[in-house]
Amino acid sequence: MRTLFNAEMSELADDLIAMARLVEGAITDASTAILTADVELAQSVIAKDVKLDELEEQVDERCVLLIAQQQPVGLDLRTIISSLRISASLERMGDLAQHIAEAARRTYPESPIPESHRTVIAGMSEAAKESAAETVRLLETRDLNVAAAIVSDDDNLDQLHAQAYKAIVDGEYQGSPQETLDLALLARYFERFGDHAVGISRRIVYLVTGDLTDSGAKI
Amino acid sequence: MRTLFNAEMSELADDLIAMARLVEGAITDASTAILTADVELAQSVIAKDVKLDELEEQVDERCVLLIAQQQPVGLDLRTIISSLRISASLERMGDLAQHIAEAARRTYPESPIPESHRTVIAGMSEAAKESAAETVRLLETRDLNVAAAIVSDDDNLDQLHAQAYKAIVDGEYQGSPQETLDLALLARYFERFGDHAVGISRRIVYLVTGDLTDSGAKI
Repeated sequence: MRTLFNAEMSELADDLIAMARLVEGAITDASTAILTADVELAQSVIAKDVKLDELEEQVDERCVLLIAQQQPVGLDLRTIISSLRISASLERMGDLAQHIAEAARRTYPESPIPESHRTVIAGMSEAAKESAAETVRLLETRDLNVAAAIVSDDDNLDQLHAQAYKAIVDGEYQGSPQETLDLALLARYFERFGDHAVGISRRIVYLVTGDLTDSGAKI
Repeated sequence: MRTLFNAEMSELADDLIAMARLVEGAITDASTAILTADVELAQSVIAKDVKLDELEEQVDERCVLLIAQQQPVGLDLRTIISSLRISASLERMGDLAQHIAEAARRTYPESPIPESHRTVIAGMSEAAKESAAETVRLLETRDLNVAAAIVSDDDNLDQLHAQAYKAIVDGEYQGSPQETLDLALLARYFERFGDHAVGISRRIVYLVTGDLTDSGAKI
């Protein structure tokens, strides 16, 4: 019974890692799509999102069955409950990558990013991609240094987000209302992406150390 | 044992209703704050959000204890798991109301909404407030007609959201980049608010009927 339980817990962990890898692929391709106006890549991100939705459903179902059949307590139960929250965050990160790709598709053959904002949005893309890669690594290793790196990427994303908005309202900015709208939303999507990664990292830190810092664990 | 379990399930349901009432108050006051440039009301919405965070934590803890101590299966277990998801959505709806209030605080003594968009944002406020009131009623009654009304409010919010963005990009619009930025985000906050209410309603419909429609239940 215990061996079966361990095998099932291991499959649950593998599902989350598979979801995180899909999210990493999605944010990487969505970033390239907006920066290079690649509509086919944008299309592929949008088409692949359904796979993340399916995996989230599979994780949810696996969690309910594991609880019902094995009646876990203590850390095992908390791991399962955290897995439900982590899968919801990963699914949402996939949605955000999809929204970024949709911006590239809508503005094709142009990029949705005006010249004034290429550097800051490219910086947000890099930070989001790192954060996604670290989320994969964190789920694989539960290494607390990786959790700290995710928080640092999020600080970076928050700063770039503020910088992107500041560059919209300062006197030099020349973007059209449509460009302003796109920028406002794109910067927001990247910023939320980082928030979800931090939420996941706080859940893992809690499982490893028992310390659930108040604000960040809510994902 | 069963009586205790029923009492605890009932307290869990009460916590969710208490959260939904706080959300209704928050979106009502945040809407008034942006439409009337009432900075004190905005401030009170922002200050009260911590109460929602505490309740979410309480619900989470109650769910873990209920599962560990009572080892529920079937519908009871699914109700508890759904409660975890519903509390996360309610907490997020509170955050969105808080973001709306923050816009009112930032632009005080002006309203963040230019004249061109007063009608559409007032319409979104009304739909969001109705959706919040219905969420309270749904959690109290599990009446499927109320669930349908929440979906209808969300359709309304989606249409108003599209209308708000369309009015930004059409030729007549004269807003400043700052106003465009504020509008883009405000409309998005209201739209996401409606999405979370739909997610909650799908969870409740599932518990009542056993029918989990694919897309909407993911919250």
